[in-house]
Amino acid sequence: MAHEFEVIARYFTPPMPNGVVGGGDDCAYFSVSPQHQLATSADLLLEGRHFFPDVDPYLLGRKSLAVNLSDLAAAGARPLGCLLSLGLPTVNQEWLAAFSRGFLELAAEHGCPLIGGDTTRSQADLTIGVTVFGEVPNGQAPLRSRAQAQDDIWLTGELGAADVALRYLSGEWPLDGARLAATRSTLENPNPPVQFAQYARPYMHAAIDVSDGLAQDLTHILTASNCGAQLWYEALPIHAALLGLDASSQQAAVLAGGDVFQLCFTAPATHRDTLQKLAQNHGILLSRIGCITASSGLQILDAQKQPIALTRLGFNHFSAST
Amino acid sequence: MAHEFEVIARYFTPPMPNGVVGGGDDCAYFSVSPQHQLATSADLLLEGRHFFPDVDPYLLGRKSLAVNLSDLAAAGARPLGCLLSLGLPTVNQEWLAAFSRGFLELAAEHGCPLIGGDTTRSQADLTIGVTVFGEVPNGQAPLRSRAQAQDDIWLTGELGAADVALRYLSGEWPLDGARLAATRSTLENPNPPVQFAQYARPYMHAAIDVSDGLAQDLTHILTASNCGAQLWYEALPIHAALLGLDASSQQAAVLAGGDVFQLCFTAPATHRDTLQKLAQNHGILLSRIGCITASSGLQILDAQKQPIALTRLGFNHFSAST
Repeated sequence: MAHEFEVIARYFTPPMPNGVVGGGDDCAYFSVSPQHQLATSADLLLEGRHFFPDVDPYLLGRKSLAVNLSDLAAAGARPLGCLLSLGLPTVNQEWLAAFSRGFLELAAEHGCPLIGGDTTRSQADLTIGVTVFGEVPNGQAPLRSRAQAQDDIWLTGELGAADVALRYLSGEWPLDGARLAATRSTLENPNPPVQFAQYARPYMHAAIDVSDGLAQDLTHILTASNCGAQLWYEALPIHAALLGLDASSQQAAVLAGGDVFQLCFTAPATHRDTLQKLAQNHGILLSRIGCITASSGLQILDAQKQPIALTRLGFNHFSAST
Repeated sequence: MAHEFEVIARYFTPPMPNGVVGGGDDCAYFSVSPQHQLATSADLLLEGRHFFPDVDPYLLGRKSLAVNLSDLAAAGARPLGCLLSLGLPTVNQEWLAAFSRGFLELAAEHGCPLIGGDTTRSQADLTIGVTVFGEVPNGQAPLRSRAQAQDDIWLTGELGAADVALRYLSGEWPLDGARLAATRSTLENPNPPVQFAQYARPYMHAAIDVSDGLAQDLTHILTASNCGAQLWYEALPIHAALLGLDASSQQAAVLAGGDVFQLCFTAPATHRDTLQKLAQNHGILLSRIGCITASSGLQILDAQKQPIALTRLGFNHFSAST
């Protein structure tokens, strides 16, 4: 077994970047800039729960890191590094080569080097644990509790595509090949706005990444900040592939669809132009989708300013099987 | 499902300690002391691989953190906090209450607060991912690569008990109730010398925690430091419960038994008295078990200075089933 695991280690042992020591030691060591706090988050990805067993391993490698980078984006943090723990039911070199290529490519794209981790044999299911580290200037993190009445609510990227792809791939909806083709990469290769978030952070009050559905995730901000919000359905950036779906399916995918890994944040209205310019510079679609209110509760209004009733608040992905 | 997971979150949401913000946010934020590096490590514990399904959940909670604290001990790091990711096949409140009590008790004992994490439903196996954070003064970590010829080799605690307990519990050896009773807590409730290690760190050259067997783990230091070592079998602190085992079983347990979670380190001979006094002050058994040599290779000598041939270098726990 030792030999096998030496082979595995090879895929995940790039040279340590400058300033990081202890690669292969019990701990990895790195520095946080003076006057900065460490921002950290860990996510577990489990076979059958967060990904299908037959998913493209290259894309799975990317997504395993991407969902964690999305947490750094919500912190407006500069990535410093990551740890990867793998529980493998079998040792498949082809799979490992593709998975590690995807993981390390995305790590390089975001300057978030793999600095440590752990590989072990699992009993049955493939298990992926990732921890990311970033830094933010002291006290400057856009906490969920920092939204203020009158703030604009902003969203990067588009909504609904990942949810739709998941419904086709899980067999919940009868297959529509064209629509699956148009949405699948949003589910399997999410692209959180990590760099934009660092530049936009000084203008943010509160931020969250959309992982469990816009309505549910925004509600976390409202609860933590003790305020409410109006969302304008007409202003939501709905993925083009959702055109032609019946209204209720579309609404569910847009408002409650998970796996988005885009950023929802609040900011004072004075920063509107600055934020739009920043988004443009970073090639990010940025939409102003509502506003924070002093009274509590989330109100979602249609084009006629009529409230939309949410039948499903948040989408727990793969929950059908539990 | 959301409701269930709110219940779970309750078990794992102690109040955030001073200086930590963002509990419940996408990231947790904390500071590293000026002139210090962050030391971090992540470990995955998988059912059937690292623990038996029916293990006492209170002890499993403690061990899940202990094996990670052991990595901080090997760094001589002061604990700052930890993240816990849980993949649960079912939601058993009694189990969760005991597991979280064990985890949080040990966290409190070591000043290593739980500051974030993630709970999800797993398909079949219980999955536990822990990441720990500590700090060490810049450049002062006892890296595996820092051993020097003539260094003493030191070991905290005792050897062999965890390996013996595992053999009984796995059914590999016919049950000996008395010997299992005498060794079981070493396997199920390891106690890494985290505080001693912080005080001893300034005197260490290289350090490693003994998780895969003394001979194998020491070899990692030798390889990284490009040197060799002599180990004196007579000087090894063998757990009393191993008396009466046949010589070959005893040797295997002592030299190659895993799950020890004690500290092996090297230090210049000038620090002998200081280290022994420190160990006494911390109530730690500390044994001088050998010395680093300029020539490569690990030599293990018996009482007659004759080399002992190792039949099994390292013990990959639970490896029988793979």
